[in-house]
Amino acid sequence: MPSIDVCYSPELLHLYDLKGKAVVAVDILRATSTMVTAFAHGATDIFPVMKLEECQAYAAKGCLIAAERDGVKAEGFDLGNSPFAYMNGNVQGRTIAITTTNGTRAIHLSMEADEIIVGSFLNLQAVANHLQELQLDVLIVCAGWKGKFNLEDTLYAGALVERLQQAFSFENDATLASLYLYQTAKQDLVTFLRQSSHVRRLENLEIHKDIEFCLQHDKFGVLPVWQQDRLVDIGVREVKG
Amino acid sequence: MPSIDVCYSPELLHLYDLKGKAVVAVDILRATSTMVTAFAHGATDIFPVMKLEECQAYAAKGCLIAAERDGVKAEGFDLGNSPFAYMNGNVQGRTIAITTTNGTRAIHLSMEADEIIVGSFLNLQAVANHLQELQLDVLIVCAGWKGKFNLEDTLYAGALVERLQQAFSFENDATLASLYLYQTAKQDLVTFLRQSSHVRRLENLEIHKDIEFCLQHDKFGVLPVWQQDRLVDIGVREVKG
Repeated sequence: MPSIDVCYSPELLHLYDLKGKAVVAVDILRATSTMVTAFAHGATDIFPVMKLEECQAYAAKGCLIAAERDGVKAEGFDLGNSPFAYMNGNVQGRTIAITTTNGTRAIHLSMEADEIIVGSFLNLQAVANHLQELQLDVLIVCAGWKGKFNLEDTLYAGALVERLQQAFSFENDATLASLYLYQTAKQDLVTFLRQSSHVRRLENLEIHKDIEFCLQHDKFGVLPVWQQDRLVDIGVREVKG
Repeated sequence: MPSIDVCYSPELLHLYDLKGKAVVAVDILRATSTMVTAFAHGATDIFPVMKLEECQAYAAKGCLIAAERDGVKAEGFDLGNSPFAYMNGNVQGRTIAITTTNGTRAIHLSMEADEIIVGSFLNLQAVANHLQELQLDVLIVCAGWKGKFNLEDTLYAGALVERLQQAFSFENDATLASLYLYQTAKQDLVTFLRQSSHVRRLENLEIHKDIEFCLQHDKFGVLPVWQQDRLVDIGVREVKG
């Protein structure tokens, strides 16, 4: 039986051996939720990049460029980090380069893994199904907030563990704690998270609508995975295939 | 109102500014529980040291030397990491040098703090009272297990937050998660922790009695704090004074 583990911060990733594992990178508010939404609305590829200048350079290649810093859209970019900005037909058939405070870092630090999957509540079951098929040991890598633990990524980890608990072993405390917290919170995630520091920080930016959107379970069947140098969606193909 | 925060691992400590803060170092199973027990049974000073050889050198100075590695007493030392080894009158009036896998590291990495306090369930209220008097911002530093998150230190953090929540603000997710987990677990900490990885690891070593002992709340009034180059107990003096 493969195992499942949770890493609460990219700052702890050096303690884990990623070789032979499937990593699920998660930044619920909002990088990975937004990437999933972009694929669901027809984006063809996503380049997650670390730096603003690097991201800006993709504009010359015909990409849409997206950037968030400290919760808001960075100056001079086409798109920010709100999923609603990707829903009006503007990303259909387009390649997007995106840089965010926490989420892109979690992806880039996971390159040693056999597979990197982008997780969010929006595509929860698609990720769970894929992991059941893969039969690799799983590490859920929470983006956190500037290296620190955050609740929303932990709750997602707990939700994914709940879906996988019959088919995966988990013998580590981070996985147990994530599951307990999710089971405490799941009846009303929005209210539960309203106390969290990051949610309050984001609510100050008046993006309560974004938060409610990102906490919806199983809205999309997309499955973004890392291939060579970018993220592509293999979800649709799987459903068709 | 001073604030309270929780750091889940020494590996995350560089993300926190310790200056002007009171650090509560915690390694429930078993370093800090054992240190508290040693003071309660008359130890006068404790040197927490990082390395086995360094610890061994204290024997020549007339100290009792104690060492744990991977859950068991290290070869050639007077004492291991079980609190029961410190209760038979053998530590009365003695100075102890001790090195453990996780706990001593949490203390040594916290040297920039204004005050370092050794916390455990055994002296929970003594620590809470002291922190209320100090009125400094508090950071609870969990020793974890080899850098990773563990449940028992997190539950202690939640227990301390519960005692302090009227007098301290907490606006960070690690503190909230600790409090939620403690409130879920507190009716029966022993059963709750039986699922945790570290407890199962220790139960394999047949030290279930140690675990039950370390989870008792408010057994001792001792208050070990760092002074100059060692830990001393200021709890008794406070009660008398």
